Amino acid sequence: MRTIKLTLAYDGTDYVGWQRQARGRSIQGEVERALAEIEGRVVIAVGAGRTDAGVHALGQVAGVQLAHGIETCALVRAVNAKLPPDIRVLGAEVAAADFHARYAARRKTYRYNLASGAVASPFGRRYAWHFRHALDVDAMRAAAAAFGGRHDFAAFQAAGTEVASSVRTVRSVSVEPADVVFGVPPPAAAPGLTIEVVGDGFLRHMVRIMVGTLVAVGSGRVPATQVQAILASRARERAGPTAPPHGLFLVAVDY
Amino acid sequence: MRTIKLTLAYDGTDYVGWQRQARGRSIQGEVERALAEIEGRVVIAVGAGRTDAGVHALGQVAGVQLAHGIETCALVRAVNAKLPPDIRVLGAEVAAADFHARYAARRKTYRYNLASGAVASPFGRRYAWHFRHALDVDAMRAAAAAFGGRHDFAAFQAAGTEVASSVRTVRSVSVEPADVVFGVPPPAAAPGLTIEVVGDGFLRHMVRIMVGTLVAVGSGRVPATQVQAILASRARERAGPTAPPHGLFLVAVDY
Repeated sequence: MRTIKLTLAYDGTDYVGWQRQARGRSIQGEVERALAEIEGRVVIAVGAGRTDAGVHALGQVAGVQLAHGIETCALVRAVNAKLPPDIRVLGAEVAAADFHARYAARRKTYRYNLASGAVASPFGRRYAWHFRHALDVDAMRAAAAAFGGRHDFAAFQAAGTEVASSVRTVRSVSVEPADVVFGVPPPAAAPGLTIEVVGDGFLRHMVRIMVGTLVAVGSGRVPATQVQAILASRARERAGPTAPPHGLFLVAVDY
Repeated sequence: MRTIKLTLAYDGTDYVGWQRQARGRSIQGEVERALAEIEGRVVIAVGAGRTDAGVHALGQVAGVQLAHGIETCALVRAVNAKLPPDIRVLGAEVAAADFHARYAARRKTYRYNLASGAVASPFGRRYAWHFRHALDVDAMRAAAAAFGGRHDFAAFQAAGTEVASSVRTVRSVSVEPADVVFGVPPPAAAPGLTIEVVGDGFLRHMVRIMVGTLVAVGSGRVPATQVQAILASRARERAGPTAPPHGLFLVAVDY
């Protein structure tokens, strides 16, 4: 039995999320089905993080145990041949027998696309949150600085979530002007912003609530200086709305 | 009655093309339906070019005649509110009464996305033609030069097409290395190429056959020097295959 570490990219638009659910197509379910066809028995894929319905990945990681002796390069081709085109295995490598994609993850990088302009691009509707008004980048950067470091992020998790501890360490939050180009060259690029968050772990909806709060700051509804108080309050209702899933990408998981 | 010039962007993936068809959803049909709801009667939208099923537009132009006195800015908002999100009106302006989007077009710009890499990006599957192997850019550029100028492009039109003349003027064909980024920031960018073609008019499938031929050159199957002979032959079977529609964008129409 070998433990294999798979790196995956997917367009989450048409899925119920990473995790297998009673109803609907999940990324995990598709990956497990493709692997089971190769392995000839049930395979469990352990993901580094459970991306929500509609959230995308550029570098999700999953660990699987395979008895089949197929070479990793051939495995990538074989799994991709059985996966739908909106899910791709980018790479496979043999990992330590005790590798656990979730517990062993040291750092995760998420990115969120914001687009602005009078009209939402048809090419961005699946990949960016669109605003008609411009966002105040300086205010958003000032607010974002408050997230850095070790904090109790209870105000930034989905209401009703039960976790042992809501303390997490955010290593960096950057807010960068970026043309958000959608499969198409510059003329179609929408002026936009990219918010990148790096941390050791994230609570449910944490990145999306951080983004929703930064957008509230950038839109002038919440002063940048208030983010520290929102964190300290540990009260979900003090933070901004949960940003929609389609702008969010799990970029990478580091071990 | 005013003549209005509309500029449109659309993701052509889920449409039978610009032109209304007996079956299936067309861009023209959707635009006409939205306008008819505002105008209260049937509206005909004359497109600058008939993009094929699956082809996208960043700057298609359509002319319409409206009795309704709505201001152009309000018209853009009203039409977009009635259109599906994969079709957007980018702008509207009052044109000369005799403006005809097709006949008056002086120049059209098309762009084609090619992506390369071992694994096709899930974010490119709707917007680029993917190759596992690298393409020889220098050879493609040498071949592309042969297209420039006034030629009989009979070898580069869909077989069985009837037109009065297959002579067209191609102003430029550029082949540029370009990271093809799909709604997502650089880590997800696939190394690729962009082929841009500017001309006074195009035959049916002309850009796609030009691209198919350039790809045959870039893959080493056809020598770059042969393109001139293919043009001169006026024989469709001498040219390369028709590139798939999903990599093609109508970028702009100039008047």
